[in-house]
Amino acid sequence: MRFHSRTSSAGVVEQPFTLGEVPGMLWTPEGAHGTRPLILMGHGGGQHKKAPGIVARARHFAVEGGFAVAAIDVPHHGERSTDPEFDRLAAEYGARVAAGEDTASLDTALYKLVVAQTVADWQAVLTAVQRLDHVGGGPVGYWGMSLGCALGIPFVAAEPRVRAAVLGLQGSAVLTEAAGQINVPVQFLVQWDDELMPRAQSMALYDALGATEKTLHANPGRHGDLPRFERDDSLRFFARHLC
Amino acid sequence: MRFHSRTSSAGVVEQPFTLGEVPGMLWTPEGAHGTRPLILMGHGGGQHKKAPGIVARARHFAVEGGFAVAAIDVPHHGERSTDPEFDRLAAEYGARVAAGEDTASLDTALYKLVVAQTVADWQAVLTAVQRLDHVGGGPVGYWGMSLGCALGIPFVAAEPRVRAAVLGLQGSAVLTEAAGQINVPVQFLVQWDDELMPRAQSMALYDALGATEKTLHANPGRHGDLPRFERDDSLRFFARHLC
Repeated sequence: MRFHSRTSSAGVVEQPFTLGEVPGMLWTPEGAHGTRPLILMGHGGGQHKKAPGIVARARHFAVEGGFAVAAIDVPHHGERSTDPEFDRLAAEYGARVAAGEDTASLDTALYKLVVAQTVADWQAVLTAVQRLDHVGGGPVGYWGMSLGCALGIPFVAAEPRVRAAVLGLQGSAVLTEAAGQINVPVQFLVQWDDELMPRAQSMALYDALGATEKTLHANPGRHGDLPRFERDDSLRFFARHLC
Repeated sequence: MRFHSRTSSAGVVEQPFTLGEVPGMLWTPEGAHGTRPLILMGHGGGQHKKAPGIVARARHFAVEGGFAVAAIDVPHHGERSTDPEFDRLAAEYGARVAAGEDTASLDTALYKLVVAQTVADWQAVLTAVQRLDHVGGGPVGYWGMSLGCALGIPFVAAEPRVRAAVLGLQGSAVLTEAAGQINVPVQFLVQWDDELMPRAQSMALYDALGATEKTLHANPGRHGDLPRFERDDSLRFFARHLC
């Protein structure tokens, strides 16, 4: 694990890193010493580890909750190299969204192209980050919306170190089986007027979650309109289960 | 408004009262002076102002939030006199629930029998309680599940002094019009496996709420199984909107 820089502002230390081929970002509270809970954040489709919605939440989790937070570029995103097959599918996905057409079959194709690699990447990053003195081997949470949920569900299902997850903006049927294998508490976010995920599919994916404790939060608005108070609620959910 | 007693325990003062024919209960933090936010709590069907779920939440709101809290017996409940028509409908309702039969038409009949009186009772109690020195004319919230939601929706829609509401466990179509007239923030609770309220009806009632800010929280479990963490969430919701 190589760190490229270390900058500190407004109470948070930011450290970009590379682990093998995986570019990532680590946020910790200024002056952090010893073991603390860790939140892994999965970005959305077309986004990356430093997307504004990731950075704002990561800094909030670090400052208000004392958490360590890590994000990575998932395959074919951010600083990672892409490939023609992924680019073709992503372009078709964008065209179908723009035309208001169904994207379910493309969701599945895109997912299958990256899911195995992403799970392996997250497991390697989790191991490496928890070796750091200011992170340590504390409880782990996962936060991911949309693509970050699609790739997060198989990761959370496969990884026993993850003890709680905030997921949502997702309802692809390809995730049903992995969702059934999740047995840690989940907070699942739905946008009532989501133009990308039909409401009934999102409800079905929540229904499929194997967790005994799972809460669905639905709010009015489109895919990108998560209300700000859900950020505070995510922090409280993680604090309740990881601290 | 006549108070019958005043007892104090574990940080909360309890004062049973009568206003006209309406028996009620007022909870305030020990040592409370001056104006504070007020929460009105509507009990469920067959319950009353001192049902365990009402008392536990009222004390929690008073101790943890510094709120004043009032509950009343709604018509035909608790210490209030009943009448043969109500008793007949209530008995039939119980029999249909026991037989697993649909209760929608009875919901409507029971609702129509009590709604106008209940709204008038709440408005009178609100006015009287806010005249007390240790309550005053602060912001007002309403909390009510099941019957407490059915009777709360027309009250909240009609009463501009109410600024936020926690509602739920309800999906009767008779409420659709009044729900559309609510324009204050609402937190709406759904039990995913509710044996009394079909899930789709609950979702439709949430959908009908006219509020711009409305959050649906769904959790696994039956009608009576609201998870304890929703009590804390209700307190935070009221604190965010009333304090």
